[in-house]
Amino acid sequence: MSNPERPENLDNFTIIGLGMIGGSIAKDIHNRFPDATVLAIDASEEALAKAEQDHIIDGRTTFDELGRVACTIIIATPLDSVIPIAKKVHKAVRSTDKKLFVLDVGSVKTGIVAEFQKLSDENIEFISTHPMAGTEFAGFAHAKKDLFQAKPWMICPHDNNTEEATELTQTFITQLGGRVRMVDAVSHDRNVAVVSHAVIMLSNYLFDYVASEHPEALDYAGDGFTSTTRLASGNPKLHQDILASNFDHTQEELEEFTKYLTKRLDDDLIPSKDFFEDNMQRRNRWLHKRK
Amino acid sequence: MSNPERPENLDNFTIIGLGMIGGSIAKDIHNRFPDATVLAIDASEEALAKAEQDHIIDGRTTFDELGRVACTIIIATPLDSVIPIAKKVHKAVRSTDKKLFVLDVGSVKTGIVAEFQKLSDENIEFISTHPMAGTEFAGFAHAKKDLFQAKPWMICPHDNNTEEATELTQTFITQLGGRVRMVDAVSHDRNVAVVSHAVIMLSNYLFDYVASEHPEALDYAGDGFTSTTRLASGNPKLHQDILASNFDHTQEELEEFTKYLTKRLDDDLIPSKDFFEDNMQRRNRWLHKRK
Repeated sequence: MSNPERPENLDNFTIIGLGMIGGSIAKDIHNRFPDATVLAIDASEEALAKAEQDHIIDGRTTFDELGRVACTIIIATPLDSVIPIAKKVHKAVRSTDKKLFVLDVGSVKTGIVAEFQKLSDENIEFISTHPMAGTEFAGFAHAKKDLFQAKPWMICPHDNNTEEATELTQTFITQLGGRVRMVDAVSHDRNVAVVSHAVIMLSNYLFDYVASEHPEALDYAGDGFTSTTRLASGNPKLHQDILASNFDHTQEELEEFTKYLTKRLDDDLIPSKDFFEDNMQRRNRWLHKRK
Repeated sequence: MSNPERPENLDNFTIIGLGMIGGSIAKDIHNRFPDATVLAIDASEEALAKAEQDHIIDGRTTFDELGRVACTIIIATPLDSVIPIAKKVHKAVRSTDKKLFVLDVGSVKTGIVAEFQKLSDENIEFISTHPMAGTEFAGFAHAKKDLFQAKPWMICPHDNNTEEATELTQTFITQLGGRVRMVDAVSHDRNVAVVSHAVIMLSNYLFDYVASEHPEALDYAGDGFTSTTRLASGNPKLHQDILASNFDHTQEELEEFTKYLTKRLDDDLIPSKDFFEDNMQRRNRWLHKRK
């Protein structure tokens, strides 16, 4: 590595999957690494054509060409196809003689990290990451630059990851504006179950409960109900994939929260003004820190 | 009533409480009833001065002057002072010989409607309403025009309300852009418990649960967690007042939702894509209808 700020592997990228996340990464590479070459693989002709037309990518490639053209490969496909695509990449590049790095950005890590450990060897190294950024919208049309600015971006290394790979990944993430956090896959999945996957379920369950059991009450619903149930309008396939990949942790968290709720209700006490005040202050401090 | 579109009682207003709701009503009266006189009573010199300076109100008044100057009085004070203020108004105007109407806009109705029934006589008639509009912000600084546009605005009449009072109130609400719904106070309070007060509590409990039991997970929290817990940054005094006024219904709804959650978790099944799809469609239809 001649320059730690700019390893040569960060000169050639191939992005597999030009959706909202993959597309946003392409836009950021274009801005933050202006001399780098970015190629893409995607099933959508429309996404590829739009990305070429906007000069977000320098061209297309194929799995067969990967070993020749790529240095750093980013898998940004839907969660349930990360492992199949990783295996396909591994097969495609196995006769190459340069060192390749493969990153993914999937939102559930345990299964992927275990597979990445198995697939990694001296020629090709898989390293698993998760940027904490996104919206309820999917697809290249919703890709935007600076999506990762100041957002946490987790790296979940496995035992076969080299220092070179984690350093390259840290440099890449930092250049894109993300805040690197190193964490093991199980802690990662438990934490995203708490603040994301269980919350997706709660939001969906709340909407379903009201719409099914008290439909007449929807007339009374205002902005509070709207924001609390916003996730119930999210991408159904994405939600089901995420839940299927992290079901045990999510279920455990929902059970723990239900116990907390039951305990609160058993108290049968109106929470004090201090409870609301303390919540407001903690939440505002947290919001402030995120900015 | 010479003109059903514009009863003469809608020529003279006194607003008691120039907060976010009272201030927004003042702005709308100013736009929608340009010939009407609007006076105000408020403890905040700053709110009164700003409203005068912006020509939102025509001046100030006092309880002692009410019987002389007012025709329609709107009580827009915090929830826990609606009844004390209503009694003060009743006392202040008892020697007047014109017919006065007093509206409130409190968000919990059972206690207020019972009191309004007792206070109403031939000279002064109290009628209770609730506009389904608001934000997490309080105070005159957050008042805005057209806040009530296309929003449901409930009227909860009591046995002593005359047709004249309900018609005047309907005309007033319709002119401000609101959608009138007539509903009894108990149904109202049960419905707002479902979609508003229980939701305020859920949002607060979710934030407290995560911040207290899993503070490390806050690093992983994104926009989904932010919108689901938005209400936890709401006005603490407002939240406690609302909850104190509608505690039994809110508690009942939270218990019912907790039972629903427990049943869902006992199934121990990953919800199907159809569950998410159906939720998304129902929610999007509801959002569309609200516009």
